[in-house]
Amino acid sequence: MSQDSIGVGVIGLGVVAGQVARVLTERAGDLAEKVGCPLVLRKIKALPADLSRPLARELPARLFTTDDDSFFNEPGIDIVVEAIGGERPALDYLKRAISGGKHAVTSNKEVIAKHGLELLALAREHGVGLQYEASVGGGIPLIAPLKHDLVANKISGIFAIINGTTNYILTRMSREGIDFASALKRAQELGYAEANPENDVEGIDASYKLAILASLAFRSRVRPQDIYREGISRLTSRDFRYARDLGFSIKLLAIAKESGGAIEARVHPVFLPEKSFLAKVDGVYNAVQVETDLAGKVLFMGQGAGPLPTSSAVIADVVASARKIVLGIGSVSVWKAVAGKRIRPMDEIETQYYIRMSAADRPGVLARIATVFGDNEISIASAIQPESDDVTQTAELVIMTHPAREKDVQQALRELDKLDVVREISNFIRVEEIEGG
Amino acid sequence: MSQDSIGVGVIGLGVVAGQVARVLTERAGDLAEKVGCPLVLRKIKALPADLSRPLARELPARLFTTDDDSFFNEPGIDIVVEAIGGERPALDYLKRAISGGKHAVTSNKEVIAKHGLELLALAREHGVGLQYEASVGGGIPLIAPLKHDLVANKISGIFAIINGTTNYILTRMSREGIDFASALKRAQELGYAEANPENDVEGIDASYKLAILASLAFRSRVRPQDIYREGISRLTSRDFRYARDLGFSIKLLAIAKESGGAIEARVHPVFLPEKSFLAKVDGVYNAVQVETDLAGKVLFMGQGAGPLPTSSAVIADVVASARKIVLGIGSVSVWKAVAGKRIRPMDEIETQYYIRMSAADRPGVLARIATVFGDNEISIASAIQPESDDVTQTAELVIMTHPAREKDVQQALRELDKLDVVREISNFIRVEEIEGG
Repeated sequence: MSQDSIGVGVIGLGVVAGQVARVLTERAGDLAEKVGCPLVLRKIKALPADLSRPLARELPARLFTTDDDSFFNEPGIDIVVEAIGGERPALDYLKRAISGGKHAVTSNKEVIAKHGLELLALAREHGVGLQYEASVGGGIPLIAPLKHDLVANKISGIFAIINGTTNYILTRMSREGIDFASALKRAQELGYAEANPENDVEGIDASYKLAILASLAFRSRVRPQDIYREGISRLTSRDFRYARDLGFSIKLLAIAKESGGAIEARVHPVFLPEKSFLAKVDGVYNAVQVETDLAGKVLFMGQGAGPLPTSSAVIADVVASARKIVLGIGSVSVWKAVAGKRIRPMDEIETQYYIRMSAADRPGVLARIATVFGDNEISIASAIQPESDDVTQTAELVIMTHPAREKDVQQALRELDKLDVVREISNFIRVEEIEGG
Repeated sequence: MSQDSIGVGVIGLGVVAGQVARVLTERAGDLAEKVGCPLVLRKIKALPADLSRPLARELPARLFTTDDDSFFNEPGIDIVVEAIGGERPALDYLKRAISGGKHAVTSNKEVIAKHGLELLALAREHGVGLQYEASVGGGIPLIAPLKHDLVANKISGIFAIINGTTNYILTRMSREGIDFASALKRAQELGYAEANPENDVEGIDASYKLAILASLAFRSRVRPQDIYREGISRLTSRDFRYARDLGFSIKLLAIAKESGGAIEARVHPVFLPEKSFLAKVDGVYNAVQVETDLAGKVLFMGQGAGPLPTSSAVIADVVASARKIVLGIGSVSVWKAVAGKRIRPMDEIETQYYIRMSAADRPGVLARIATVFGDNEISIASAIQPESDDVTQTAELVIMTHPAREKDVQQALRELDKLDVVREISNFIRVEEIEGG
């Protein structure tokens, strides 16, 4: 099925879709050389409102349609790029493209996290490919390395900073000692956070991305609802101060591990040793550390979002799809999830903990608190009482534990909350003793 | 050309070849699933001396041959892995394999750096592939990202720590304040440096790897002899002390940049701002920062050497080659060097400089030295005189320049060397004001 040119259709005219259209047009010569024949942007399916965007005026009017049928019936579209985001109607568009025998490329983490296996099965059935490099980590190669370059390895863990908005907020909180609300406000002013920031700050975005990475790494279906999730809004400047005093940074980490045939997957704030490499990834940067048995720890870092980086990944997928067409090969998806591995419930995970509480400031209190930990099989690594308030006779107490089971820690926290000498469990944050670098 | 199984022949039985043979055997089931049919290790071409290695006893004796002809005439070998290293006879073996219609996989940086284009042309001619992911950065995906994942980008720069031996030595010098000879000795005791360390410490190894990365990134032939090269043996503990005082780390960096249609490529020690990400890459780790116009700065990090990481890359290439055979496609090499771009002579590069010298300790000396810099169009950013020796009336002087041309700096150094007030130009090290992280 060699052909004179390969046609591309783009769904969407937001910043990503627009940038993809721009690269396809402006770098046509380079891309043709890499593909082996010209890549031609044939149609853009836009919303009526999109047509007033500046980009719409950069490109010839004949390229645009607002009608689904005329887009999907357009002859000569071999590859469809979906870049509208969100679950619907993106999922329907992807299904329609694939069912129509078109190779599909998407930057849509939500659709891939929730429906990736289904879409890949549909693509195999129709002999086409489905590529989604841009769904995680913007321009950082992650999907291709997991699918191809690390194929010889058994992967035991993924530790990822994959949400730039939260990393930006945490970096400001850490550097400036400001609280979450102020840091969020600044991120919003700079366009790094949305007006409704829930998707980012509650870890939803990160959990979609982790579902995709973990499914690939462990070759088993990991769904967003399999991922334990906690956002960053509970963090306070006090936590950052104690973290620094104790030699840690605070990051929103997406963690997936496989051991004993079971997978654990979670997104929550963690204390990371400040000497670890991931602790040094600041601002809007993303970084993913993959732990493997042959290649050791491999780290990928870069800009995880934005139209330019995302277009880099989308175009790489378009070129890969086009190469398949030129070579006459269809779906060669490597991601076939093996029979689902067990998802380890959060109760069973084992890690270390930072616990901050207010307690009565009098002799014997620490003994009573320590007894609750001991009774629940939790060893205390350190207990410090950095501040006390003479008026209320309340002391702040910061406890770091040795590795303990989540279930035991939760039980201990419930018991502590009932102790008359404990005024408040102010926060607890898990600690990842990750190495690297 | 679909087939029941795909045969692999391995040349060499050193630590890398041995580990490749082990993975092919022990992970046969996993690899078969990824390829679509079994990958079978059919023959190992070893030296007579290799046959007494422990690995030779792990594998059936029928797998071994010490005879070239019987290896190359063995039926059913589709993919040849060359893992003996060095220019000859590795080059001849690769040519013979390719000319015999076999896909070739190599971890040999010297052969690829010196003969890559010739071998790729031969592979195209014979309709087979030549893969060399393991030639740079061990288990870190680098070649595939440059060939595929970053294909949409214009790459403007590569900044790489790609020799673990020298990075280990520099890390010890920096942390412990020891001199080069002591750090080298420790690296040798730990097996991180060879008895004859020239290849590593003089930057030869790094220049091969940079030639490969730069050729791919800029799609133009960059040969090892096009690369300016300086090793690390001139560095002293004093340089490390001043670097730290000034806010820098010292790294052996492989740098390639393209601007104005010309390529500059160089391997030498540099002052890196200690806040930059590459400055934090310590010990035997490797890291490559790629600067692109769409994806921004992308960083890849991991273990750059060792049999396990290298086998990870070799097996990935074997699987990719096998997939091509299963899909019935031959050579699909993307690396076609465009007509050679100009190599910028070292004289023309522009960077900043750290210069350490001994000078007479009396009034007016700095003025005379500063005049030499000024006359050569070099602006001084700072001049500090950290120490002076009352007996010899000699002062140590450390000068940091603003960006200046190499040619001018070399001229200034020659003139300074002739000044009666200058006792010695003790060292000069280029400064890279790289950002990232």
